[in-house]
Amino acid sequence: MPDSGRQRAVIENIRPAVDGGRFAIKRTVGEVVVVEMDAFADGHGQLQCRLRHRVQGEQRWRESAMMPLRNDCWRGSFVLDVMGRYEYTAVAWVDGFLTWRHDLARREDPQDIELALRTGAALVQAAAARARDEQPRDEQPRDGQADPATDLDAIAARLAAAGELQERRRVALSQQLLDLMSRYPDRRLQATAPTVFPVVVDPDRARFSAWYELFPRSAGEPGRHGTLADCEARLPYVAELGFDVLYLPPIHPIGRSARKGPNNTLQPGPDDPGSPWAIGAAEGGHKAVHPPLGSEQDLVRLVTRARGLGIEIALDIAFQCAPDHPYVQDHPEWFRFRPDGTVQYAENPPKKYQDIYPFDFETEAWRELWCELESVVDHWAQLGVSVFRVDNPHTKPFAMWEWLIAEIKRKHPNTVFLAEAFTRPRVMHRLAKLGFTQSYNYFPWRNTKAELTQYLTELCQGPGREYFRPNLWPNTPDILPEYLQLGGRAAFISRFVLAATLGASYGIYGPAFELCEVAPREPGSEEYRDSEKYQLRHWDLERPDSLRALIARVNQIRRTHRALQQDWNLRFVSIDNDALIAYSKHTDDLDEILVMVVNLDPHHLQSGWVELPLEEFGIDEERAFQVHDLLSDARYLWHGARNFVRLEPGAPAHLFRLRHRVHTERDFDYYL
Amino acid sequence: MPDSGRQRAVIENIRPAVDGGRFAIKRTVGEVVVVEMDAFADGHGQLQCRLRHRVQGEQRWRESAMMPLRNDCWRGSFVLDVMGRYEYTAVAWVDGFLTWRHDLARREDPQDIELALRTGAALVQAAAARARDEQPRDEQPRDGQADPATDLDAIAARLAAAGELQERRRVALSQQLLDLMSRYPDRRLQATAPTVFPVVVDPDRARFSAWYELFPRSAGEPGRHGTLADCEARLPYVAELGFDVLYLPPIHPIGRSARKGPNNTLQPGPDDPGSPWAIGAAEGGHKAVHPPLGSEQDLVRLVTRARGLGIEIALDIAFQCAPDHPYVQDHPEWFRFRPDGTVQYAENPPKKYQDIYPFDFETEAWRELWCELESVVDHWAQLGVSVFRVDNPHTKPFAMWEWLIAEIKRKHPNTVFLAEAFTRPRVMHRLAKLGFTQSYNYFPWRNTKAELTQYLTELCQGPGREYFRPNLWPNTPDILPEYLQLGGRAAFISRFVLAATLGASYGIYGPAFELCEVAPREPGSEEYRDSEKYQLRHWDLERPDSLRALIARVNQIRRTHRALQQDWNLRFVSIDNDALIAYSKHTDDLDEILVMVVNLDPHHLQSGWVELPLEEFGIDEERAFQVHDLLSDARYLWHGARNFVRLEPGAPAHLFRLRHRVHTERDFDYYL
Repeated sequence: MPDSGRQRAVIENIRPAVDGGRFAIKRTVGEVVVVEMDAFADGHGQLQCRLRHRVQGEQRWRESAMMPLRNDCWRGSFVLDVMGRYEYTAVAWVDGFLTWRHDLARREDPQDIELALRTGAALVQAAAARARDEQPRDEQPRDGQADPATDLDAIAARLAAAGELQERRRVALSQQLLDLMSRYPDRRLQATAPTVFPVVVDPDRARFSAWYELFPRSAGEPGRHGTLADCEARLPYVAELGFDVLYLPPIHPIGRSARKGPNNTLQPGPDDPGSPWAIGAAEGGHKAVHPPLGSEQDLVRLVTRARGLGIEIALDIAFQCAPDHPYVQDHPEWFRFRPDGTVQYAENPPKKYQDIYPFDFETEAWRELWCELESVVDHWAQLGVSVFRVDNPHTKPFAMWEWLIAEIKRKHPNTVFLAEAFTRPRVMHRLAKLGFTQSYNYFPWRNTKAELTQYLTELCQGPGREYFRPNLWPNTPDILPEYLQLGGRAAFISRFVLAATLGASYGIYGPAFELCEVAPREPGSEEYRDSEKYQLRHWDLERPDSLRALIARVNQIRRTHRALQQDWNLRFVSIDNDALIAYSKHTDDLDEILVMVVNLDPHHLQSGWVELPLEEFGIDEERAFQVHDLLSDARYLWHGARNFVRLEPGAPAHLFRLRHRVHTERDFDYYL
Repeated sequence: MPDSGRQRAVIENIRPAVDGGRFAIKRTVGEVVVVEMDAFADGHGQLQCRLRHRVQGEQRWRESAMMPLRNDCWRGSFVLDVMGRYEYTAVAWVDGFLTWRHDLARREDPQDIELALRTGAALVQAAAARARDEQPRDEQPRDGQADPATDLDAIAARLAAAGELQERRRVALSQQLLDLMSRYPDRRLQATAPTVFPVVVDPDRARFSAWYELFPRSAGEPGRHGTLADCEARLPYVAELGFDVLYLPPIHPIGRSARKGPNNTLQPGPDDPGSPWAIGAAEGGHKAVHPPLGSEQDLVRLVTRARGLGIEIALDIAFQCAPDHPYVQDHPEWFRFRPDGTVQYAENPPKKYQDIYPFDFETEAWRELWCELESVVDHWAQLGVSVFRVDNPHTKPFAMWEWLIAEIKRKHPNTVFLAEAFTRPRVMHRLAKLGFTQSYNYFPWRNTKAELTQYLTELCQGPGREYFRPNLWPNTPDILPEYLQLGGRAAFISRFVLAATLGASYGIYGPAFELCEVAPREPGSEEYRDSEKYQLRHWDLERPDSLRALIARVNQIRRTHRALQQDWNLRFVSIDNDALIAYSKHTDDLDEILVMVVNLDPHHLQSGWVELPLEEFGIDEERAFQVHDLLSDARYLWHGARNFVRLEPGAPAHLFRLRHRVHTERDFDYYL
């Protein structure tokens, strides 16, 4: 027999929830969490529900009322004031006073009313006692201020006293008594939801960010190994383009043994710099800066300088070692050995990656290994780095990431982790659930209207949106999609606009992107020819065909339009040509309504009729409205839902802001 | 840092599951539970998954292999051999041997193969040690029988020894070694799913049952109060009609104070029998038999006699008291009192039900009350009653039902509880989740094709089907639907066929049903005029217009066709007339394919073209097939998916069995 046998209320299906509360939902600071649940009780008593929330670690819950919707569903909400972790749950009870009040209002027989008033007097009396009990915890009533206990006592006496029945009933049903009783409900038999649901509260940039990736060693003068100081000199360029995260591939010493040459060849020349992901050499490992790039001080200065321009520096976390990483000597127990006494290198038979030693996470010394890896991230976080791009997290234990990310965010709640896991869907989702802030995803390979519509709808409207925040990259150093290779400049523009307006977070790998680099290592490959992963490159940023102006414009539009700063508001809009895609983003209050139209065909002019959901937009079907292309600054007057668009490959996108006349109460119209 | 940090496998989303394992899924004895889950690990190791199940209370799990499906989904199954409660969960691990084997098969470099064989030898050696450790638990190898440990030792030696490389590799990749190693996997780092999921295993009749309700007091000769002995005499009739549950409204002493007269009036005559739901009088309460009906011995004899005819007697559980129930004197603490010292009767202001005292489940003495109520059910269960119809369970605490049903089913696992909760959807679902075996539902008010299609699809295909087993009633003593009142005999036939073929469980309130009683208490009411709830009625079972022959026929068809004995196989079939509804039920092996077509219009002939999903049925589009109407015994030859049907109100239903010629391997065709 359960101890809670007298708790008649039931709470079910609290949402949002990820895996029944096993994992946190994700929000950013300042956002509101809207919670719904099903709650009900046996019989016909009046239910009351309260939402509870607190910052994790706090003793006391904060409570707020939940309101009934249809079908035994209740809704409440709370605001996230600080970064870190919150939690929420709910309580419900059958409210004796409200039930009594509901019945009293319907009673007709005077004798029943008389008896009910006496029953009610007892309920009010009990509330007075509760009010008196609670008083020490709240403030004592001051002179002239109402004392609820005294007020309740007085009302109880009036209800119970002989007197005119309808007058006493009026008091019983008064708003005053309702308000007082609502402050001191009888909650002895309240039911508490069995589960507490966590929330991770991230900084704004977890939800809204524009990333720019560059190889520091290519940032110098032609022929010279670039440095972190060169990156510092590049900051104004990155700021001009409007990015807020500057992501650097690993900046640590690069191994020498089994070093890779240009284009991933196995015979490097003496001056070949190797892959930055082959981490560790005599100069140090994951906590050191590669000497040709500069020093730790250079990094700190870069981070500080960047922050002054509104840019966060993101470092790469790649938990693997070059053969000459100090760990190999100092901690052989963290590696697997072959029967011949050599360390097991990475392999996927018959392929071998002899320049990379993976950690053996099944080692007996796994706790020490985890602690060391956590200390790597903490090292850079302590130096001011708040954004990390994590290389191949899906080849390291899920449990380690969950622990490590929680540890780091406990100490540095503003940290953002981007998971670079291009793998199977459930694995990617697990990484997002267990704590990664943002995730690379399949966007690079979603090119057609059907693919984009299906995939972005899944990302932005599916259940995964509670924890999986997509970061859309049209290219990376590992991925030069065929669509860009074959589509050239027009393809770069349309993929850029798609990434930057479909997703609140996106990134490009530059300058290869803005300079429309299209050469693959070999036909059919997605690798770049002469990839910066294995050699220095020099890029002419001043080339007249650079997309820098367009990129700057789009990023500026993103910064000035809240509708583009979130993912959940994405809606696809009907357009009668499969080479054109159209979608809207609007703010909840409809103050900003944006409609994007993009030509997906990089070779031909395409035109079609777009059909806008005017009613959803709150736009009068009968009146003309303006569409203002924020890219070209052109303005058109449209009328009704169906309108014609045409886009050439040279200028393949519209970013329309809808500006419709708004009726005000004073009959003074204005354009939004 | 979690202790399980080296467990690299992850298990997610085990299904079926009700509220994350909080409640049991429901099955019947002999059924197979098919379990799916998502499981994966970091990296590229080979995963192994096992499904675990056991009867609740057993120490050891039984394990069976799970097979991988697409997209990291795994499936396994187990059979339910006994009634009661089972539970299931799963384990997964990254299998070192399988990973090693997978890699070995792909290695090309002879030196790598040599080293891999030495690594493999160590894996096999370790398995030999595990085999040796396990042997005491299994039997010792007998003479001449293979000893796995010795075999493994020998293979390990061969792998490690100098010798021809390809020959040793062949041994390493052999099926023999795979089989041996699969018996002794290294599971030290296996992950166990965090939740154990319960299963309630019910008797067959929980899934498949035909109920007949009658008032015993109307079963006697005209003008005489019927008895349980009269019910016994009625058994052959009920058996002839083909029912397997005979449900009697409460058989307990009926209260005298505030007794209701005919048609629910407040002034009964001295001979008026009152409502059987006003339980309790000087003669006794919930554990007594109303003396005019007979004795406890009469009930036992009725139960035994019925069982001999394949019929279970169902009693009514109505936890409420008439004012003269002995509980009121003996246990005033179980009731709520009004300020004037009287017991609070049931009310829904301004309505009052002064003949009914509800229990006060918020009483301090709730534990004693629960125990007493459980003892009521147990009393009748001990006398052999295994089916209970529970009156208004939604006005008693959910927690009590969960406890009470579990207690009774622990002692009497074959017990079936039917919930009579005609209330809001979530409340009805909660009752089903917490243990009610079957549930009344909204079927009485689902009349149109759209309503029936939507509602039955929800019941049979929605997530609730794991726990909510609908029992379809076209009428009850409380519900004479308007559709029957206005549609007359044709409506009775079509509603009967719908109930009996849409649902594996259904019931009728007779003889009012088979005699097509249509008079409401007043126009617009769903109450019967001169309802048996308040007075005796006499029914002429021999009336020539009785539906008894049709009912017997349909019940016989249900008994001989497995396709009609389950709910999950219901599929609606397209038909181009909204007054006609068509649906199929087939066995998994397609041995039985039934297609029902019912005219929903009780007033007019209707015809239309039905479009059969022949491919799903495994029927050749190109060849004719027979449709055999099991109701009329007529046979038609059909060809292709589209076929014409017409149904008159007088014979408003087809129950087609599809009989198509089956090709056998020996090219010998036969009709199914």
